[in-house]
Amino acid sequence: MTKPNTKTLKGFKELLPKEQMLFNTMLSVIKNTYELYGFIPLDTPVLERAETLLAKAGGETEKQIYQFTKGKTNYAMRFDHTVPLARYVAEHERELAFPFRRYAIGRVYRGERPQTGRLREFYQCDIDIIGKNTLPLTADIEIPQIIYALFQKLLPKNTPFTIRVNNRKVLNGFYASLGVDTVATMRIMDKRDKIGTEGVSQELQAIGINRDTIQTILAFSDITGTNTEIIEQLKALNRDNEQFNVGIEELAQVANDLSITQIDLSIARGLDYYTGTVYETTLDNFPQVGSVCSGGRYENLASTYTNSKLPGVGISIGLSRLFDQLLSLDLISLKQATPTQVYIIPATQQQEAIYRAHMLASELRDTRNIPTEVAMIYKLDKAMKYANKLGIPKVIIIGEDELVQNVYTFKNMHTGTQQTLDKEAVLRIM
Amino acid sequence: MTKPNTKTLKGFKELLPKEQMLFNTMLSVIKNTYELYGFIPLDTPVLERAETLLAKAGGETEKQIYQFTKGKTNYAMRFDHTVPLARYVAEHERELAFPFRRYAIGRVYRGERPQTGRLREFYQCDIDIIGKNTLPLTADIEIPQIIYALFQKLLPKNTPFTIRVNNRKVLNGFYASLGVDTVATMRIMDKRDKIGTEGVSQELQAIGINRDTIQTILAFSDITGTNTEIIEQLKALNRDNEQFNVGIEELAQVANDLSITQIDLSIARGLDYYTGTVYETTLDNFPQVGSVCSGGRYENLASTYTNSKLPGVGISIGLSRLFDQLLSLDLISLKQATPTQVYIIPATQQQEAIYRAHMLASELRDTRNIPTEVAMIYKLDKAMKYANKLGIPKVIIIGEDELVQNVYTFKNMHTGTQQTLDKEAVLRIM
Repeated sequence: MTKPNTKTLKGFKELLPKEQMLFNTMLSVIKNTYELYGFIPLDTPVLERAETLLAKAGGETEKQIYQFTKGKTNYAMRFDHTVPLARYVAEHERELAFPFRRYAIGRVYRGERPQTGRLREFYQCDIDIIGKNTLPLTADIEIPQIIYALFQKLLPKNTPFTIRVNNRKVLNGFYASLGVDTVATMRIMDKRDKIGTEGVSQELQAIGINRDTIQTILAFSDITGTNTEIIEQLKALNRDNEQFNVGIEELAQVANDLSITQIDLSIARGLDYYTGTVYETTLDNFPQVGSVCSGGRYENLASTYTNSKLPGVGISIGLSRLFDQLLSLDLISLKQATPTQVYIIPATQQQEAIYRAHMLASELRDTRNIPTEVAMIYKLDKAMKYANKLGIPKVIIIGEDELVQNVYTFKNMHTGTQQTLDKEAVLRIM
Repeated sequence: MTKPNTKTLKGFKELLPKEQMLFNTMLSVIKNTYELYGFIPLDTPVLERAETLLAKAGGETEKQIYQFTKGKTNYAMRFDHTVPLARYVAEHERELAFPFRRYAIGRVYRGERPQTGRLREFYQCDIDIIGKNTLPLTADIEIPQIIYALFQKLLPKNTPFTIRVNNRKVLNGFYASLGVDTVATMRIMDKRDKIGTEGVSQELQAIGINRDTIQTILAFSDITGTNTEIIEQLKALNRDNEQFNVGIEELAQVANDLSITQIDLSIARGLDYYTGTVYETTLDNFPQVGSVCSGGRYENLASTYTNSKLPGVGISIGLSRLFDQLLSLDLISLKQATPTQVYIIPATQQQEAIYRAHMLASELRDTRNIPTEVAMIYKLDKAMKYANKLGIPKVIIIGEDELVQNVYTFKNMHTGTQQTLDKEAVLRIM
């Protein structure tokens, strides 16, 4: 009889033990860093009422969403953590303390055509700070500090990264002062890296912007320098637009020259969603990777669900994609295929050897917190093969001789050195 | 305009911050314990090919499963971790080392009618040890050690629990020697706690078992005593059935009198799935809770997906249900609603206070790994309310006076004591 297909579906990925171990290490770093900054874990359901989850969605987004009906209920699978956050805050507003700092680490689902790097099930790791009515700019200033602390730990050494910031008020105010369609213009300018100056010029012309204005737009987005220099150049534009000037002030506070951020006026973050500071994080030596951590300030999180005004700022890391990219760039490398640090082999079926193995294992686990495994393979060569395949760093052998002499054979699997040790000596070198 | 319904769907649950913090602590204890015993994390997709996931399912199970079609694909949501494990091992067999020890912690989905304690989305926390062709009985012996280590940590002190074991070979062999329908008889006997001796007697009669045999069956399931006494009584039954005798031998090895397990011949674990040792774990003072950790030995994990013979043994914890029960029994209590241990309040909008707050916060995070939050509320009373609501244990205040004198006001929120300290003193008491 033909067996069912055991491969995962296209766009769905499962990891082999070595990959999973490494992926989980990265998940832990993210979780621990988010908690170090006092973000509260949140774990909303994967399935929601379709009408609630999709209340604001439409077009492309809605097409991608996994929806189905069971009984009388229309279900939809979450496609990000932001919409569930908005619903959660609206539902539990009175029980929460504001500013509400939450993190969400979990899988989200998008039924896109799976292309390279595009998954249908993937991990997103978000933080957001939600204010009630207001949220001070210190929230915007704190976000890059968290990104910095996180990527210092998450990326291997010698992988410099840059936290780029911009402010939508600067962009909106600037384009408004020119009298052009802000969103359309920004959408086009956002593609400058991909289609080049000629390309964006043509597209801007196509939406009816004249050559002079296009030159001003290009000159604006060409502004570079230190953060202070950029702020000075922006001020020197003397555009009489309040939004523009407020944006410059905010940008100046988020990115001064002592800051860990770099102003990049080309960043818009396509969506209409953001209204103030926006962030992107890029790997200096691998621009092709694009932004690995993005987000920004929004005016109102949950207007779909509540009349309360809930301004916020947040970032998101698409960990599944980042993991794949770091692996394929050889920036991270697979190590162990198991948490086990010590593998104890009773190399004889004598009860006494098995008993001693378990006693030592218990001691290592209970008093040292060392992940320890007792072999269930009693042939030494086969057991060593197992330890090798899993990349276990330390092996302890209890054979007939060891039993008689009341000692342990200790093998360091990285160096290959082997020693005969009594129990105290074993515990000492762990 | 009416706002969309922001409540979660029936059978779906989301936790408030205090609950989530506590739930995550329990998740961590489970994860860490599983890893301490060398189990490898696995994280299979939530969505699978329906025809693969449901290859073996049928009847009640199949009705409960969330299934849908998108494009040309029939999707099903995982309803446990065992079927995905079987598929995974079949698919990746050549890349794994055996015995394959894996844990899976994650949500599974069952569209049951949601009753008290029955959720449609809930966490299951599984370990399994899968052998290739054979798996020694030491695996069965190790499982209760892990349950014991885990529940020692997971349950509050003074919550004694009992790991009950039985062996399906003993049951199967015994019933076979009586010539009765094994599965049907066990299904009935499994209900003895609920419907009583009279109830099961009637049901046994109804499937055609005579009174004498029923007495023998009841007497068998009434066997009690120490593990050694039970083993002796089983042997004394002198039933000439090989399966029965092998089962007794296995049971004697899993549960001797020094063991942390208690033989309970009434345990059958309803399913036809198990073939050897079976486990249940009960809270001594709360029998109404039922088993909080169950599992057993199975002959062949993945016959649906591969011709390889893969015997295994495993257990599962339904954490969402256990959490609800421990909470409603007041065995665990909610504490903090945030990971934050130290909350630093710049009780003035002076830049210097905010700057100093962030410097101290960085030091606590970077050198002490202490989750620290800088207040974004600059009114002292409002900031204290926030700290109180979240249950943050330590507060540091930097106001005008503190700035001038270069000190910090430290408040222990549990005792209410307040001290004025210089920075060294602050770091010393953290």
